[in-house]
Amino acid sequence: MAVRIGRHTAVLDRPVYIAEAASSAGKKEGEGPLGEMFDRVYQDSMLGEKSWEMAESRLVKENFDLLLKKSGHTAVDICIAGDLLNQDSAANFGYRDIKTPFIGIYGACSTMGEAMGIGAAFIDGGFAETAAAGASSHFCAAEKQYRAPLGMGSQRPQTSTWTVTGDGAVLLSRAEKKGAPIITEVLTGEITDMGVKDPNNMGAAMAPAAASLLTAYFKETGRTPDYFDVIATGDLGLVGKTLVIELLAAEGYVLDDRYTDCGIEIYDSESQDTHSGGSGCACSALVFTAKYYKMLCDGKIKRMLFMPTGALMSPTTSQQGESIPAIAHGVVIESRC
Amino acid sequence: MAVRIGRHTAVLDRPVYIAEAASSAGKKEGEGPLGEMFDRVYQDSMLGEKSWEMAESRLVKENFDLLLKKSGHTAVDICIAGDLLNQDSAANFGYRDIKTPFIGIYGACSTMGEAMGIGAAFIDGGFAETAAAGASSHFCAAEKQYRAPLGMGSQRPQTSTWTVTGDGAVLLSRAEKKGAPIITEVLTGEITDMGVKDPNNMGAAMAPAAASLLTAYFKETGRTPDYFDVIATGDLGLVGKTLVIELLAAEGYVLDDRYTDCGIEIYDSESQDTHSGGSGCACSALVFTAKYYKMLCDGKIKRMLFMPTGALMSPTTSQQGESIPAIAHGVVIESRC
Repeated sequence: MAVRIGRHTAVLDRPVYIAEAASSAGKKEGEGPLGEMFDRVYQDSMLGEKSWEMAESRLVKENFDLLLKKSGHTAVDICIAGDLLNQDSAANFGYRDIKTPFIGIYGACSTMGEAMGIGAAFIDGGFAETAAAGASSHFCAAEKQYRAPLGMGSQRPQTSTWTVTGDGAVLLSRAEKKGAPIITEVLTGEITDMGVKDPNNMGAAMAPAAASLLTAYFKETGRTPDYFDVIATGDLGLVGKTLVIELLAAEGYVLDDRYTDCGIEIYDSESQDTHSGGSGCACSALVFTAKYYKMLCDGKIKRMLFMPTGALMSPTTSQQGESIPAIAHGVVIESRC
Repeated sequence: MAVRIGRHTAVLDRPVYIAEAASSAGKKEGEGPLGEMFDRVYQDSMLGEKSWEMAESRLVKENFDLLLKKSGHTAVDICIAGDLLNQDSAANFGYRDIKTPFIGIYGACSTMGEAMGIGAAFIDGGFAETAAAGASSHFCAAEKQYRAPLGMGSQRPQTSTWTVTGDGAVLLSRAEKKGAPIITEVLTGEITDMGVKDPNNMGAAMAPAAASLLTAYFKETGRTPDYFDVIATGDLGLVGKTLVIELLAAEGYVLDDRYTDCGIEIYDSESQDTHSGGSGCACSALVFTAKYYKMLCDGKIKRMLFMPTGALMSPTTSQQGESIPAIAHGVVIESRC
């Protein structure tokens, strides 16, 4: 049974193993700095489907199948997933043929953190022996839904981020897997809204949510940032990352080079014209599964705080002039190498 | 720690108390057969807000405040909630000022079952001492998003259901509350899609998901329907309920008068012109919190299977000709009276 050590932090009773990870990315992501690290790169953004929405569902399904194949499992006890599309349709249609108990979640780009936290809680609590946790997004489907049809060729401001096409998923397991990293703590964030209204500046909207959960964690545990080799927030991008550093400094916590943001890592912002960085549920999911998971398996990093961050507005609420609520969810992961 | 007794069923180690329940309903619901049972009935469908979407968020916030007030608690450890609006905006904006760790979920009209199951798992596993689980919907916001603008005055076929306006929420607690009913088992459903494509016949789309989880539960536990005083599915309505009875009969299980559907209970279909019944996340949430919760507290029923059912399509997927995936999630609740 887990132990709560503060309002936001629970320490697991027994380690939950991240037994496997799978990453499937789009063409642009494959051309970026992490291109070589992805398990699979799709050159066709339609994946042979007739719509971008169904292309994303296919990505979800094929990455889940890949996760099972890589892990040697034939099934899991429960799947936990979400995405950015209205009514979570990428996940719901992606998992509809998988015939496994399913928990649909909505945390926008914090989804991977939320899914891993719920999965760890279900395993720690005895509700499952194995769980798949995943998150997806698709640039074309997201642009169509959130902003303007691609055919309009709208200009993007420098504060905007680029929605990542891809799916990242992990297989969580109660059974020990030699060398696999473990989840040791689960962090659940609060909705934070500082009044930012610009949907082209989501980094600024989300930074306070990340900063507030980070600060709460350090206060609840008495730890400082140097407890971790890597602290990775979700997809704040360049604008949001700078704000998090400032907000933490104001609380007396220095985030040095060990702090990174998945939104900055996934693209080469200059050569790939992605402005403030990457975003979308798949952003942190891909950076974790393709890069940090392997570094944890290899022992290149020993302890990591993975904290994806989500902007919780809808196009309707933005059109109605509402500000952008945001949230962050995190997991502490340790290498067993 | 919970014990899994099958792929879909987990038995809690210790009882999770449903310490309190709160129900806030719209005008039409207040005029229905359960009208007298709701804690609060709003006569103004806008709740003083400028949009239906924000009216639903206000409903969420005010019902949460009411839940706390009724319970005597000043806060809970975690909130779990969802709704039907794009990007879960009713829940996200409803909970943004509540300053509590938050888990956003999407399960369409199965949301209340999913939220109660996750809440019970978090408490059973030691991640929280108290949790609020809730679900909301709003007729006008849902019609605008899913079907046609109300001003068009479109005709509704007899198979269609009426989206319930309201919010139902429960306060789950590890600490014993004298006389409060307890959650003893959590049932997690799979996505089921039998190819139904008509978004005006969601009962037919969802019935197989409810039937499949019911059948799985009876097979996994060796029990039969008479183990329960009440089995209540989500919002299948008249069409879906009939199908569930037929599907269960084909598996050898007789669902007699102890089987009800929340979508049938909430309106008087003849005098209220609601055709096949009520639907929406708030349908089962209101029927449970306003009616069955009290019957469990009073000992009028001793054991209940509460199983809300959700249709997981989006307007986009329906327009693209896709069928309607569906899911059900359940909790077994016992009276302590």
